[in-house]
Amino acid sequence: MKFELTILGSSSALPTSKRNLTAHVLNVYERFFLIDCGEGTQVQLRKNRIKFGKINHIFISHLHGDHFYGIFGLLSSYNLLGRTSDLHIYAHQKLKKALSYMRRNFESQFSYKIFFHPINPDQEELIYENKRVRVYSFPLKHKIPTSGFLFEEKMKEPNIKKEYVNKFQIPIKDIHRIKEGDDYQTKEGKIIPNKELTLPPYKPRRYAFCTDTGYNEDIIPLIRKVDLLYHEATFKNDHEEQADTTFHSTAQQAATIARKAKAKKLIIGHFSARYKKIDGFIKEARKEFKNTYAAEDGAVYKIEQERIQRN
Amino acid sequence: MKFELTILGSSSALPTSKRNLTAHVLNVYERFFLIDCGEGTQVQLRKNRIKFGKINHIFISHLHGDHFYGIFGLLSSYNLLGRTSDLHIYAHQKLKKALSYMRRNFESQFSYKIFFHPINPDQEELIYENKRVRVYSFPLKHKIPTSGFLFEEKMKEPNIKKEYVNKFQIPIKDIHRIKEGDDYQTKEGKIIPNKELTLPPYKPRRYAFCTDTGYNEDIIPLIRKVDLLYHEATFKNDHEEQADTTFHSTAQQAATIARKAKAKKLIIGHFSARYKKIDGFIKEARKEFKNTYAAEDGAVYKIEQERIQRN
Repeated sequence: MKFELTILGSSSALPTSKRNLTAHVLNVYERFFLIDCGEGTQVQLRKNRIKFGKINHIFISHLHGDHFYGIFGLLSSYNLLGRTSDLHIYAHQKLKKALSYMRRNFESQFSYKIFFHPINPDQEELIYENKRVRVYSFPLKHKIPTSGFLFEEKMKEPNIKKEYVNKFQIPIKDIHRIKEGDDYQTKEGKIIPNKELTLPPYKPRRYAFCTDTGYNEDIIPLIRKVDLLYHEATFKNDHEEQADTTFHSTAQQAATIARKAKAKKLIIGHFSARYKKIDGFIKEARKEFKNTYAAEDGAVYKIEQERIQRN
Repeated sequence: MKFELTILGSSSALPTSKRNLTAHVLNVYERFFLIDCGEGTQVQLRKNRIKFGKINHIFISHLHGDHFYGIFGLLSSYNLLGRTSDLHIYAHQKLKKALSYMRRNFESQFSYKIFFHPINPDQEELIYENKRVRVYSFPLKHKIPTSGFLFEEKMKEPNIKKEYVNKFQIPIKDIHRIKEGDDYQTKEGKIIPNKELTLPPYKPRRYAFCTDTGYNEDIIPLIRKVDLLYHEATFKNDHEEQADTTFHSTAQQAATIARKAKAKKLIIGHFSARYKKIDGFIKEARKEFKNTYAAEDGAVYKIEQERIQRN
């Protein structure tokens, strides 16, 4: 069961010939969540062979053009493709008006419905939930209201080992009980302990998306022990002051957040186009947090399923 | 002296992984004219190493998203790059409001001025002129008001052959007269005929951009004998009816226009994403007009200077 991130764009505000504007896609069990939608996202989706139609939820962190100017074209293409399934957009409420404005003026009647869910950028909120996953938004520290997103897989029931079901012909009502933690008593009266009957459930996997933001320790409790943390690193330390004044982060700051949050893996991105090479970002970040990687357009990060360890 | 077209995008409404949305750049003596600005144009400019800063004039044919949704990001990037020179935009007046709306809501104060020049889509008009070139707009036949553009180099004076200037020490006042067609009388009284003194001027070069449009013979007189004609060919003849109802053209129709207008070269583009290969477009068009080429992203078409032939 997949929990897999694809980076569609890794540049900051100015795209380059190699780095597109911010957009990520998270595949959770073949449901696709689009996170930010910079100009060019629809082409990046195609290049990365992600089927448009599988995206039903779009999350926009904030309303700077490099994070959402691609949405107008994407919505328009959905219409041309004859999309019928509902599309849900989670963003600052100002986007709702802009989408209406553009549709009213430049689009024909859409073939599908859009449901707009305004995000409150001032507090942590559960903004979406299905049977597999919950999505939270939380405040970041930027020039304009900006939200981070946390995608959290739900804890599932433990699996009963098939050989026991067959061996003891365990009836369905008992299976439910065992999944909830009960032991099982055989017809002969023998007690089989729950631990022996079941495989422990998989650990819920978590992905946190933090862009754009200045250094902000307030987010640490929310993203604690996250499997995969994306944190922007627009600058290196040589531009720490500029990072501060523009409410962006340096590679070191991103890595410090990862270290303090005990994240398992850090991806940095949103690199300023002023840097021709990004080796220095990695070097700087790894001093603070070893398991750091630099986002590249098209890179895929899988989080594997892992069973919870029992004592 | 360059007169050179670069195709930045050759797809119709849906971009593909190989074809971006419509945008052309015409380089006239190192002044760059951007024609249409579909999503992704700014990245295509970078990939084709066209310097953003050299574009001072943007022409938008019509307000379907695939022809102008890239302008918001481009204008934003100009601001981030600290552009100071004026930018002129020629488009249907509805775009003026949309640009204001987006700037008001999502942009900071721009570092440069935008001058908006509304196009009257119902008639032929001279919309821009400098010492080298004139640009005309003219009506096309599409679902919404749509304009084609004709870029026409100005006729220059003939060049006086340097060897005569040196040999006879011709004074400046006489040089002006000779350029206007006078013969020259030497100090010894000998008449040197103008034809001998001068090289004939270069033929003014012309490029016509015709997208999106149904088959429309009304444009033929305007684009007569144009050096380079870009005419959309969204469909092949197998979809002629669909071309008609959507106000687009087939490859054959585009070529018929080129033939009837006695164009020198035809480029077809705006191919529907339904066609995986475009060989059939070329085949179909060349039956009508041999000198046809299929637009490819990144393709460059130079029009060489050629002196007018004297009898």
